[in-house]
Amino acid sequence: MRDGMNSRILLDAAKSCILASSPVFRRQQFLIRCVGGSTDQRDMQALRSLEVDSQSIIRAITPALDPTRHKGQAGNIAVIGGCREYTGAPYFSAISALKIGADLSHVFCTTDAAPVIKSYSPELIVHPVLEESYNVGEEHKSSIASKVLAEVDKWLERFDCLVVGPGLGRDPFLLDCVSEIMRHARQSNIPIVIDGDGLFLVTNNLELVSGYALAVLTPNVNEYKRLVQKVLSSEVNDIDAPQQLLSLAKQIGGVTILRKGNSDLISDGDTVKSVSVYGSPRRCGGQGDILSGSVAVFLSWARQHILAADSNSNIRFKNPTVLGCIAGSAILRKAASLAFSNKKRSTVTGDIIECLGKSLEDISPAS
Amino acid sequence: MRDGMNSRILLDAAKSCILASSPVFRRQQFLIRCVGGSTDQRDMQALRSLEVDSQSIIRAITPALDPTRHKGQAGNIAVIGGCREYTGAPYFSAISALKIGADLSHVFCTTDAAPVIKSYSPELIVHPVLEESYNVGEEHKSSIASKVLAEVDKWLERFDCLVVGPGLGRDPFLLDCVSEIMRHARQSNIPIVIDGDGLFLVTNNLELVSGYALAVLTPNVNEYKRLVQKVLSSEVNDIDAPQQLLSLAKQIGGVTILRKGNSDLISDGDTVKSVSVYGSPRRCGGQGDILSGSVAVFLSWARQHILAADSNSNIRFKNPTVLGCIAGSAILRKAASLAFSNKKRSTVTGDIIECLGKSLEDISPAS
Repeated sequence: MRDGMNSRILLDAAKSCILASSPVFRRQQFLIRCVGGSTDQRDMQALRSLEVDSQSIIRAITPALDPTRHKGQAGNIAVIGGCREYTGAPYFSAISALKIGADLSHVFCTTDAAPVIKSYSPELIVHPVLEESYNVGEEHKSSIASKVLAEVDKWLERFDCLVVGPGLGRDPFLLDCVSEIMRHARQSNIPIVIDGDGLFLVTNNLELVSGYALAVLTPNVNEYKRLVQKVLSSEVNDIDAPQQLLSLAKQIGGVTILRKGNSDLISDGDTVKSVSVYGSPRRCGGQGDILSGSVAVFLSWARQHILAADSNSNIRFKNPTVLGCIAGSAILRKAASLAFSNKKRSTVTGDIIECLGKSLEDISPAS
Repeated sequence: MRDGMNSRILLDAAKSCILASSPVFRRQQFLIRCVGGSTDQRDMQALRSLEVDSQSIIRAITPALDPTRHKGQAGNIAVIGGCREYTGAPYFSAISALKIGADLSHVFCTTDAAPVIKSYSPELIVHPVLEESYNVGEEHKSSIASKVLAEVDKWLERFDCLVVGPGLGRDPFLLDCVSEIMRHARQSNIPIVIDGDGLFLVTNNLELVSGYALAVLTPNVNEYKRLVQKVLSSEVNDIDAPQQLLSLAKQIGGVTILRKGNSDLISDGDTVKSVSVYGSPRRCGGQGDILSGSVAVFLSWARQHILAADSNSNIRFKNPTVLGCIAGSAILRKAASLAFSNKKRSTVTGDIIECLGKSLEDISPAS
């Protein structure tokens, strides 16, 4: 696959030294300084040293569009989420996966949420299989849980990655079913990106992901805080954020954590990377869903790339979950920036999704 | 109808010899060579000799837009598909029929799927008539099956073509009802294009189509494999693909089969044709649905054309199902290529559908 790619990576790696003095890089650094909150000069120095060349990574892992490939080979993603209350989040996540370039994108949601999510777009395959407590008598819970599992199991092996959490809600019966789905996915070595209410579930049931190298957690400020409190029994330490993130990922047995913030920090307990490409100051809800769907696709691509690449591949770190997080973070930021330059304060999540294609094309042209 | 058309066909047929040395033709041949997978030089030679001048065929069968014609004369298509799980596929197929130029496009789906499919577009006429087992008590199955049949029968005679299968699902009760619908359509000599789960049904019940010259099967790689195993009791033979396809179509009594692939191969058991116009390397799910809807319209047009044309008509092969397949295949490829040149990796099925009109207009201008 992509024989000419490795030499390009080498070149890009060399360029990244030069990049450090480029106007773009300087602008990023300035912006980080301006918006960095409590980050002081010393922290900036530390963060800067963690910054990765996300564009080279995106170019390396994005598969060539080869006409001999057939449907599904560029990615088959499933989002587990969508309940009576939330329907937008799973849609945003699943449609983002398609717009990045996955071939197929599924949603497994509650029976109530399905018609609505289906109606957002005929491009998604939406399975009305989950149930919430209010819909299920106590005496039927066990049989319905088995049915839910059986229904998801029929599909599970086909998926390259699950996204668990967008618009999942917190209904205890539903979360029990989703825990079982996660256990099955883990047995089948299917990567899992966990966001939103999936993080609520996982923070309270760490064994679901602990020691699973193909798990990715994408917490925002509050979700990160709860995770740190639960796992490290301490408060969030902004002074030495990278070290704390590293400890956290290591403590959960080498899962990958993408800590969302002014700079996104990514660690698998072994290494810490930072993505600070300038995005958008607009904080409309739903951007985390774009991120989870994008990370799922890039993670699948990175995994394919690593499996197919020979031992001389020039990607310096070989963890597909870390590569997926870096690529997803960078693409979301670029798309958000493009959307904002056009729509300004009125930018909504759908506008950013419409910019995903151009953002990827600018970095890694399809042909 | 279209008196000036026949002379144009003659001209186009003459041109096709010149075309063989044109840059477009050479590029197609180059691409086939590049992407042919297991196809060697000898096979390429064979495939090349099967390539048809699809543009001339499209121009020949596309009816003139005559202001004296009234609603329905340019095609009234019905898609049988859409269940609790799938709603996008029947929508894509039915809306593609309209975008090619049919006057009316219907969908017959389950009661659950109908509101969703209706919500995708007010352009379609969606009938909530089918039922799946989970919704029907054992004791009511017979009466409900009769009701479904009666409901479809009310409309059947009006349709120029049925598309059976997009998003049909595999519920046994539903498939039993659809088998009956196919039998009725066959009695009325209504052409049937069969794709997706319709192929699952037909592969297991070959008598539904066997010997019916107005049946078209449009299998993808996996569906073709199952069909070959079932009918020829052998494995797919890529070395002599045209001969195997010919045998398969003959064995099912002269149905037309469009085998989807890098080159689409089409046979009615009598002749084999190939369409290799370059499409798109994007393999997003749903492109097969565009094809089935497009083939349905072109097939109807080809049938009208052949019925109306005098015996001197210069279309060399007179089977409307083969002509419909050639035209549908070529238009989908052209539309996919146009959409991809604009949207690249983020191309989704809806983007391709939006290019159907321009693709047809480029080949056969409306005025």
